[in-house]
Amino acid sequence: MQMSGPAHWIARYNSVRERSLALAEPLSDEDCCAQSMPDASPIKWHLAHTTWFFETFILERMEADFEPFHPAFRVLFNSYYNGIGEKHPRPQRGLLTRPSLAEVKAFRANVDARMARLFGLALDAAQRAQLEMLATLGLEHEQQHQELMLTDVKHLLAQNPLQPAYAQQAGARSEAGAMEWVAFDGGLADIGYGGDGFCFDNELPRHRQYVTPFALASRLVSNGEYLAFIEADGYETASLWLAEGWDWVCTQGLRMPMYWRRGEDGQWLEFTLAGLQALDLDAPAMHLSLFEADAYAHWRGARLPTEGEWEFAAQQDAQERGGLRQMFGHCWQWTSSSYAPYPGYETAPGALGEYNGKFMLNQYVLRGSSCATPAGHARASYRNFFPAGARWQFTGIRLARK
Amino acid sequence: MQMSGPAHWIARYNSVRERSLALAEPLSDEDCCAQSMPDASPIKWHLAHTTWFFETFILERMEADFEPFHPAFRVLFNSYYNGIGEKHPRPQRGLLTRPSLAEVKAFRANVDARMARLFGLALDAAQRAQLEMLATLGLEHEQQHQELMLTDVKHLLAQNPLQPAYAQQAGARSEAGAMEWVAFDGGLADIGYGGDGFCFDNELPRHRQYVTPFALASRLVSNGEYLAFIEADGYETASLWLAEGWDWVCTQGLRMPMYWRRGEDGQWLEFTLAGLQALDLDAPAMHLSLFEADAYAHWRGARLPTEGEWEFAAQQDAQERGGLRQMFGHCWQWTSSSYAPYPGYETAPGALGEYNGKFMLNQYVLRGSSCATPAGHARASYRNFFPAGARWQFTGIRLARK
Amino acid sequence: MQMSGPAHWIARYNSVRERSLALAEPLSDEDCCAQSMPDASPIKWHLAHTTWFFETFILERMEADFEPFHPAFRVLFNSYYNGIGEKHPRPQRGLLTRPSLAEVKAFRANVDARMARLFGLALDAAQRAQLEMLATLGLEHEQQHQELMLTDVKHLLAQNPLQPAYAQQAGARSEAGAMEWVAFDGGLADIGYGGDGFCFDNELPRHRQYVTPFALASRLVSNGEYLAFIEADGYETASLWLAEGWDWVCTQGLRMPMYWRRGEDGQWLEFTLAGLQALDLDAPAMHLSLFEADAYAHWRGARLPTEGEWEFAAQQDAQERGGLRQMFGHCWQWTSSSYAPYPGYETAPGALGEYNGKFMLNQYVLRGSSCATPAGHARASYRNFFPAGARWQFTGIRLARK
Amino acid sequence: MQMSGPAHWIARYNSVRERSLALAEPLSDEDCCAQSMPDASPIKWHLAHTTWFFETFILERMEADFEPFHPAFRVLFNSYYNGIGEKHPRPQRGLLTRPSLAEVKAFRANVDARMARLFGLALDAAQRAQLEMLATLGLEHEQQHQELMLTDVKHLLAQNPLQPAYAQQAGARSEAGAMEWVAFDGGLADIGYGGDGFCFDNELPRHRQYVTPFALASRLVSNGEYLAFIEADGYETASLWLAEGWDWVCTQGLRMPMYWRRGEDGQWLEFTLAGLQALDLDAPAMHLSLFEADAYAHWRGARLPTEGEWEFAAQQDAQERGGLRQMFGHCWQWTSSSYAPYPGYETAPGALGEYNGKFMLNQYVLRGSSCATPAGHARASYRNFFPAGARWQFTGIRLARK
Repeated sequence: MQMSGPAHWIARYNSVRERSLALAEPLSDEDCCAQSMPDASPIKWHLAHTTWFFETFILERMEADFEPFHPAFRVLFNSYYNGIGEKHPRPQRGLLTRPSLAEVKAFRANVDARMARLFGLALDAAQRAQLEMLATLGLEHEQQHQELMLTDVKHLLAQNPLQPAYAQQAGARSEAGAMEWVAFDGGLADIGYGGDGFCFDNELPRHRQYVTPFALASRLVSNGEYLAFIEADGYETASLWLAEGWDWVCTQGLRMPMYWRRGEDGQWLEFTLAGLQALDLDAPAMHLSLFEADAYAHWRGARLPTEGEWEFAAQQDAQERGGLRQMFGHCWQWTSSSYAPYPGYETAPGALGEYNGKFMLNQYVLRGSSCATPAGHARASYRNFFPAGARWQFTGIRLARK
Repeated sequence: MQMSGPAHWIARYNSVRERSLALAEPLSDEDCCAQSMPDASPIKWHLAHTTWFFETFILERMEADFEPFHPAFRVLFNSYYNGIGEKHPRPQRGLLTRPSLAEVKAFRANVDARMARLFGLALDAAQRAQLEMLATLGLEHEQQHQELMLTDVKHLLAQNPLQPAYAQQAGARSEAGAMEWVAFDGGLADIGYGGDGFCFDNELPRHRQYVTPFALASRLVSNGEYLAFIEADGYETASLWLAEGWDWVCTQGLRMPMYWRRGEDGQWLEFTLAGLQALDLDAPAMHLSLFEADAYAHWRGARLPTEGEWEFAAQQDAQERGGLRQMFGHCWQWTSSSYAPYPGYETAPGALGEYNGKFMLNQYVLRGSSCATPAGHARASYRNFFPAGARWQFTGIRLARK
Repeated sequence: MQMSGPAHWIARYNSVRERSLALAEPLSDEDCCAQSMPDASPIKWHLAHTTWFFETFILERMEADFEPFHPAFRVLFNSYYNGIGEKHPRPQRGLLTRPSLAEVKAFRANVDARMARLFGLALDAAQRAQLEMLATLGLEHEQQHQELMLTDVKHLLAQNPLQPAYAQQAGARSEAGAMEWVAFDGGLADIGYGGDGFCFDNELPRHRQYVTPFALASRLVSNGEYLAFIEADGYETASLWLAEGWDWVCTQGLRMPMYWRRGEDGQWLEFTLAGLQALDLDAPAMHLSLFEADAYAHWRGARLPTEGEWEFAAQQDAQERGGLRQMFGHCWQWTSSSYAPYPGYETAPGALGEYNGKFMLNQYVLRGSSCATPAGHARASYRNFFPAGARWQFTGIRLARK
Repeated sequence: MQMSGPAHWIARYNSVRERSLALAEPLSDEDCCAQSMPDASPIKWHLAHTTWFFETFILERMEADFEPFHPAFRVLFNSYYNGIGEKHPRPQRGLLTRPSLAEVKAFRANVDARMARLFGLALDAAQRAQLEMLATLGLEHEQQHQELMLTDVKHLLAQNPLQPAYAQQAGARSEAGAMEWVAFDGGLADIGYGGDGFCFDNELPRHRQYVTPFALASRLVSNGEYLAFIEADGYETASLWLAEGWDWVCTQGLRMPMYWRRGEDGQWLEFTLAGLQALDLDAPAMHLSLFEADAYAHWRGARLPTEGEWEFAAQQDAQERGGLRQMFGHCWQWTSSSYAPYPGYETAPGALGEYNGKFMLNQYVLRGSSCATPAGHARASYRNFFPAGARWQFTGIRLARK
């Protein structure tokens, strides 16, 4: 972690914090309050929870005269930290019409001022190191929520029959280019974060892994390619699906990705943050569950990569030769690896230890990053994770094979 | 129905319509958007649906150049009229962050202006009669929703751990006075609306009924009296409850009325529209389900009245002698009568026929009116109805016995 | 209740008891153990519970040296009497592979022997009267379960893809004859049981009721008539249905009565106790819910009778003139009356008071009797009752109108 | 696979097949028909399904004049093979009172006779090889169901308040001995089946894996040790549990392993196949979910092994030195490894390919074998798997650490 003075830290802190507010800018107070499903959270809640994180894990520990901005916020905006105490029930976050958005913004301003004061204090080296470590974690945490703000608001707006846009400008049409297989020899590899900057605890410890030779697709599966799967009755063919995936498809009667729509004339549309748009056949297919990703790969005679393969390829590709495209910044890529601790993994003591470890079950690892990930947030060793049925995230498919 | 000129009608129309907006006045845009449970609706939805009612059942029929304010509102704000077409799913009303509250107010203003124009038109007698009949129905309908706005916002605010108040001023403390039994001889009675003003179709036809002699309590059961039931382990005594009521109590682990709270020192509190207040022991016990009302009556060695008894008593009391108090304006009074058509009941043709008739099953009749009922809305023949487990309405108990 | 000596009582007792065993005769031990849904019970459970009734309500009170046949049976075979103590959970009755059917038969033989001894004892008049009252109740109770044994085993066998028959002989084809309207003048009537034999407490007290003039169909609605409703898209027409009924149809995707099947060539079949049979168009339509009965009546421009109308008509018809057919012995006839206490109704003290009263909510009254009702069990004042969605009973439609 | 003549094959076949019938011997027809939960199956269903397997995958392919014993059995006794066609709904297996147990035994005898005839036929080498491969698979499959017969009947009997025993003889008390840590150096290992006998497809291909140094407990966690966890409030301490595990504990209100009971005097009892017994403190703790196993390990400052570690240790221990006890024959041991394909894993073509592969999601691997596993069935590379919340299997804990 790079050493730097208070002014630098305050600037960095403010830069991240301001982006959260900027993301809420196009939205009304009502938009910011609603919760479209238990897995998603209101924008206002994200703005408050990320602030709660700084107040709870930094100010409460390091302010001499600590007093919470509002005692009730301790419970209202605790996401899942049992070590902190009670939590407001997750499915009822959308009922919190109070505090108002204005009050939450006042909460943010208050905590920001106190953080700035803290950064400016003369601290001993250990305290300074702790402050910088926790502030960095808080900012990385806030960046994770910035991505969720976009996925959650997209989900909310998609429920509305008016199909409103979050932002008016749609992106340019894509060019997919040919998909090629990039072969890797495998062998012993060092997996996990090995740098000296920040990483999350789940990327550690770096450890040795034996990787069997494999090949990875040079780019993501496109909408056009995925459409071929639909037209080949992929959603009606049991033999392509995992048993649980087939139940999932049948129970919910699914026939296409989450935000695809069929227009009145049969044309394919996609709900986007810019509203309803014609489906871009060359763009990466997104908002797919692991079930869909796995069935698609199966249909193509391929498979999903393991997370070890993905990271190994990312290392090799960066160092030696290139060939892989769309690894970052388009959509998260499902792997076949369940989310599990690396050998020797240890959680932090206390409530912060709940950040990652307790979720290592029945979730699957996604690698890369998406169009909604803040710039500079992800890296080759980054481990995102969701249950196999999740599809409101920007999630897609990179194929692998022997 | 009293004949009168356009100005009179416009004034009457505006007076009711303005009260709806006034009820929303103390609330933020966020408060107006949230939905706390499927049975309740957002304030904004109430404001829009009551407007939809005028546009759909009057303007669409009577405006020569009818065009809807917004085509999508036809679906979004249809409550339950299958005859009109599709409906937005009820449990998802809280996700309609668009249209905004401001747009809904513009919708109201637009419809109000068109209604005023319609009132001012030269119409033939049949058209004028139809307009006045439908406008009256629309206004009575809006008054029903005004009561629901208060019950629904109370429920929403009660879910918030901050326990916010809708209005600051709490009412004065009550004086219960003694409860006495008022005896009625019974005999043949005419039940149902018999006047020449407005009534809902479910109050018709007025018909003959034989009423067995009975007695009715002179006032409602008070909080203090209901507290004695709790302290006598009423909620733990199976023999007092209907079978379905006992399941309801056990499954939900209930021990007190919906908005009662136990303070940290054991004192009894009640969540009200003025926030959390000390329990007023002399005030009528409210927010009780039929299950609770029936169990309480059982415990007192009494029973609930039938709706015929209640109406008979209200007629007699008004005409002859007095003795009954709190019949109107405090809380709706559960009867033991299931909601059913009167002999010879007929629904209106078309979608308006869905107003009442299709709900006549597994609901129970409440009589009187509540503190949230608009002045002048109810009468002795008025039939309110809810499922036996509902308790977010202002519902209480008047005892009866042989 | 007719006075008679011990031998007469023992014979009467044995006659009813033996019929229960005879009903189980065509079934295997496995058939007798399974439970096809929570609302139905295993045959073995019926055989044991009816025996438990005699042991609990008679032998335990009147045997000097009472000891239960098996202490655990007190809980295992208690249906719903909270006053007796704990109950085995209803949905798990099918898991009671022990006690075996043979043990349950031994339980029956034991209780029968003790009942015979009790009948033969010299008792004082009060004791004798109590014994005869309770024994009569126990036998009437057992007859109610005999009907349930047939409805429950029919439901179980219908779940089996092999579509096995309970009994081989199918009934003769029916002749419906013309349906005519039989008019009744109405007026003041005495409703409820007025004889000096046995009746259930819910038939009392006999009381005065004012009945508006009405007409009743001379016979039940036939399969052929109901088929016309299906072919006229009755199950697809929202306006015909109660709101809750329409939800019920849509949620379950229903299109025909419970046991109707469509053959491979499109012919209509019906699962019966004699297995799958061609649909008898002239036979009364059966296994219909109140929702279906009400929608059908609506479609015909008619309605269901109230229970007061039905009983009034049965009295008049019997005394004066005839004209009504299929009142008893074909199928129970839904009325529009919710199951409620008669004016002045009182439950028995203690656990026996739970027999009827606590179920008087959200259930609807059926009148008449069915092909599965034991001979002599029902009468004009008899009140059967089920929730509106129940259709595994032998339930059908008699139309009424003004 | 060892070559041998028809007589040998018939004897081997009969030996396995007869054991299934022997397992059903202590049970009544009723016991064999009931299904205690959707995850469990009736004994009769196991007896039929294992027979269906031989008829469907061998006789149908290899009998010249193939005719099914009963056409409906094809659907009734298909477990989960979509490639074969329709399946009877799993949760309704307990409603199949027909075919009777006697008919199912006749089905078994019929298929056994036809299999014997097939073994005796003169077949060409390819056909003979196919027959022997499929017959071996069928017998291994039947052995898997033999274990399930015991776990399912235990679960059924445990639901019965009479707490009946399957077999009268209880085992001898255990002696746990000290638990020690056995260290392994790790390094490159070959994981997966490497012999020339039978193995399931999920044990293949044998492949290289890098194993980090670790230590394994010399024996399983005992009941006494697990009791200490309970007494230390393990079930009330959120920080010990995975997030999903904590939800699982709270939602179900769990406080002890599945079959533990608290006696009236507070003593600890365990429901076993020999009925209710005093808890054997030295015996391995069993019927634990992965959630419980993981929380216990957490509490001990240890963790669960990965399946690679377990297999590596089993290889080393067998070849070099010993030190590990209770690896086989006591209870299945949860690993932290999600059930996933080995690198290069391929499923068989056709319906047999559904045997394992489609279940490789949201399940966790168990290693070893249990007291209910048929002798000779398991091996070091054997992979059993269940969802994290399953605890009706004989599942326990072997601890690991760095």
